[in-house]
Amino acid sequence: MHHVMIIGCGFGGLEAAKALGGKPVKVTVLDRTNHHLFQPLLYQVATAGLSAPAIAAPIRRILRQQKNLTVLMKEVSRIDPTNKQVSCEDGEVFDYDSLIIATGATHSYFGHEEWAQHAPGLKTLEDAMNIRRQILTAFERAEDEPAQAGEWLSFVVIGGGPTGVEMSGTMAEIARHTLRGEFRNIDPTKAQILLIEGGPRILAAYASDLSEKALKQLTKLGVKVRLNAKVTHIEAQGVWIGQEKIPARTIIWAAGVQASSLAQSLGVPLDRAGRVPVQSDLSVAGLKDVYVVGDLATALSHGAPVPGVSPAAKQMGRRAAANILAKLAGGTTQPFRYIDYGSLATIGRSSAIAHVGPFKFSGLAAWLFWLFVHVFFLIGFRNRLMVIADWAWSYLTFARSARIMQSPTRPDE
Amino acid sequence: MHHVMIIGCGFGGLEAAKALGGKPVKVTVLDRTNHHLFQPLLYQVATAGLSAPAIAAPIRRILRQQKNLTVLMKEVSRIDPTNKQVSCEDGEVFDYDSLIIATGATHSYFGHEEWAQHAPGLKTLEDAMNIRRQILTAFERAEDEPAQAGEWLSFVVIGGGPTGVEMSGTMAEIARHTLRGEFRNIDPTKAQILLIEGGPRILAAYASDLSEKALKQLTKLGVKVRLNAKVTHIEAQGVWIGQEKIPARTIIWAAGVQASSLAQSLGVPLDRAGRVPVQSDLSVAGLKDVYVVGDLATALSHGAPVPGVSPAAKQMGRRAAANILAKLAGGTTQPFRYIDYGSLATIGRSSAIAHVGPFKFSGLAAWLFWLFVHVFFLIGFRNRLMVIADWAWSYLTFARSARIMQSPTRPDE
Repeated sequence: MHHVMIIGCGFGGLEAAKALGGKPVKVTVLDRTNHHLFQPLLYQVATAGLSAPAIAAPIRRILRQQKNLTVLMKEVSRIDPTNKQVSCEDGEVFDYDSLIIATGATHSYFGHEEWAQHAPGLKTLEDAMNIRRQILTAFERAEDEPAQAGEWLSFVVIGGGPTGVEMSGTMAEIARHTLRGEFRNIDPTKAQILLIEGGPRILAAYASDLSEKALKQLTKLGVKVRLNAKVTHIEAQGVWIGQEKIPARTIIWAAGVQASSLAQSLGVPLDRAGRVPVQSDLSVAGLKDVYVVGDLATALSHGAPVPGVSPAAKQMGRRAAANILAKLAGGTTQPFRYIDYGSLATIGRSSAIAHVGPFKFSGLAAWLFWLFVHVFFLIGFRNRLMVIADWAWSYLTFARSARIMQSPTRPDE
Repeated sequence: MHHVMIIGCGFGGLEAAKALGGKPVKVTVLDRTNHHLFQPLLYQVATAGLSAPAIAAPIRRILRQQKNLTVLMKEVSRIDPTNKQVSCEDGEVFDYDSLIIATGATHSYFGHEEWAQHAPGLKTLEDAMNIRRQILTAFERAEDEPAQAGEWLSFVVIGGGPTGVEMSGTMAEIARHTLRGEFRNIDPTKAQILLIEGGPRILAAYASDLSEKALKQLTKLGVKVRLNAKVTHIEAQGVWIGQEKIPARTIIWAAGVQASSLAQSLGVPLDRAGRVPVQSDLSVAGLKDVYVVGDLATALSHGAPVPGVSPAAKQMGRRAAANILAKLAGGTTQPFRYIDYGSLATIGRSSAIAHVGPFKFSGLAAWLFWLFVHVFFLIGFRNRLMVIADWAWSYLTFARSARIMQSPTRPDE
């Protein structure tokens, strides 16, 4: 039977897998973790609002009804498109007939990999737990060493895209509301949250009036925003913008995109961020039966680049699966057409921006809309209920349910 | 103002801290984590039934209303009872007027510390996450390497106390129900769960007819139990009982108790498990104003040893706090009298044993009683709701909400 391999089970890979259920193919899904992650809510785990299991579900549980499909937890190290083989880190080699690559992207430090140790990024559950621990530790250390409270309570977020905006807005809420009254030696509401953006506006992918509204809302939540500021150096205790040093003990990286390095083994030209340019049917020119979907692909639709957002990844996953089935049935592949349902970014408590069709709106209405959309698309009925309960609780009490550090004190942190 | 230091914020330390709220003392609570842990449900985190935040709450949040109290996240390294000082790992030294030590106990490998790497124990949230990852990984690896499935699906739990019984019963449920239908190369219901107990019966602290009932219920759930079996050696791929090797890739240690090593710096004689013998008022003979409560103490009440259970720790914490206040007010300390509300052990789905006053019962009734008691005593209204929701969901669907491994594949695991 025709063997379809899917590498990576994010939004693109999962949709492709679902679209192949009950079809006359044998499917193998490889992922290096055991779970599908609802990445749009990852910042909530990093800021102690949700527990990790609330936004993740075991891949094999989601796909358990599909009897033609095997899930393996494996890290892929190399693809050999000539021999149609996939090699894993543990040495195992698989033959495939058709391949869907959906391994996504991670953050890019623009060639400054040494910054990673001081300014962690947010892509995996592990990243989220690390950042959560760092943020919570900073307040603990400030209470313990009030003389250094200024530095401990200085938080810098680099990058004014959706993740940077969500992170800084939520951190302001934690400092101003969640932790109020819990400390004796410091005042957590005095914490400084600084968002640094290299370009002239935050949320640059959005309409400029929405960017401006987001900036106002963010400022109202207590975040300081610096625009047109290029970070030139990062060290353990601060960020440099040219000759100016901003002291901070907690620095979070939310800038830059770097595609999964697996693409390099395809032997085709990649774009500057390491993404694979795909043809209109999402296959890769010059390779046989290889499709790339989601953030790893550079695709065009209606002449415009497809954005790196989860609805696009899902649509691409479905299209790649349909094209494989069409070819198998002796038909022809269809071009991918991205359907843009609009864009949404949340900023913080009761605050978001939305752009849906001709409608632009912001503030509470946009936030409620954001809430509804995100909960609706969360995997699993149970997770939805949990997240609603958690959020209702947080909204009413300002408490955050996941303020737990698993490791004991680390004095060197 | 009289300065009371409390080291450790488990059940004993937390109750002592609460009892000192609003009293004419200054209180400092030191703990190496930021959370109070509801340890009786830790096995549920280890077996993917609950998320870590569901059974833990930030200490400073629980105690935020007590304005005479400061919480610091710090690891204590040494106590100097002569000079009434406490030294921390980071070099800070505190003076105290009265001291309550409540740092509890951890598992003991009976002098075989080298077994720890192969057979992790369960005391902290980090332990629980490690064990969760090991159990889930074992099934993933079995699916990946069906030729080795026998070893990967062989699980050994060492120690037939409450933790060992809960862990093995729940693991049987996971193998037989939760994972059913999710694998293609293996049958998870074929997993072997073996509970090894050195003595002649499991749950030896309970009445012998309840032990027998527990053994029957555990066997019915699919756990094999070996009694009178002494583990003589543990290696990465198996457990030795004398000359017999039991191959297993996942080994969990639930035997032995070793008191917190902090007790050694007191300079008083300790019992065999490293616990501090206390006088009837919970103070330590020969030391000034030092009280020990919870699992770290060897106490007598009504002539019998006080058991190492959470209700005893809570009662001791309250008594130590009351005695400090009594002395401060010029009065005399009172002896500790343990009130035994009964004992309860859960075994698995719908299965538990209970001994309350003259009543002994088991099965579903005991399990419902266990459920009620544990949820009732969980810290925080919100956690209670979450845990009820999680359990109701699991009970109805056999699903487990926290089947998430945060780390990618580790081929050497």
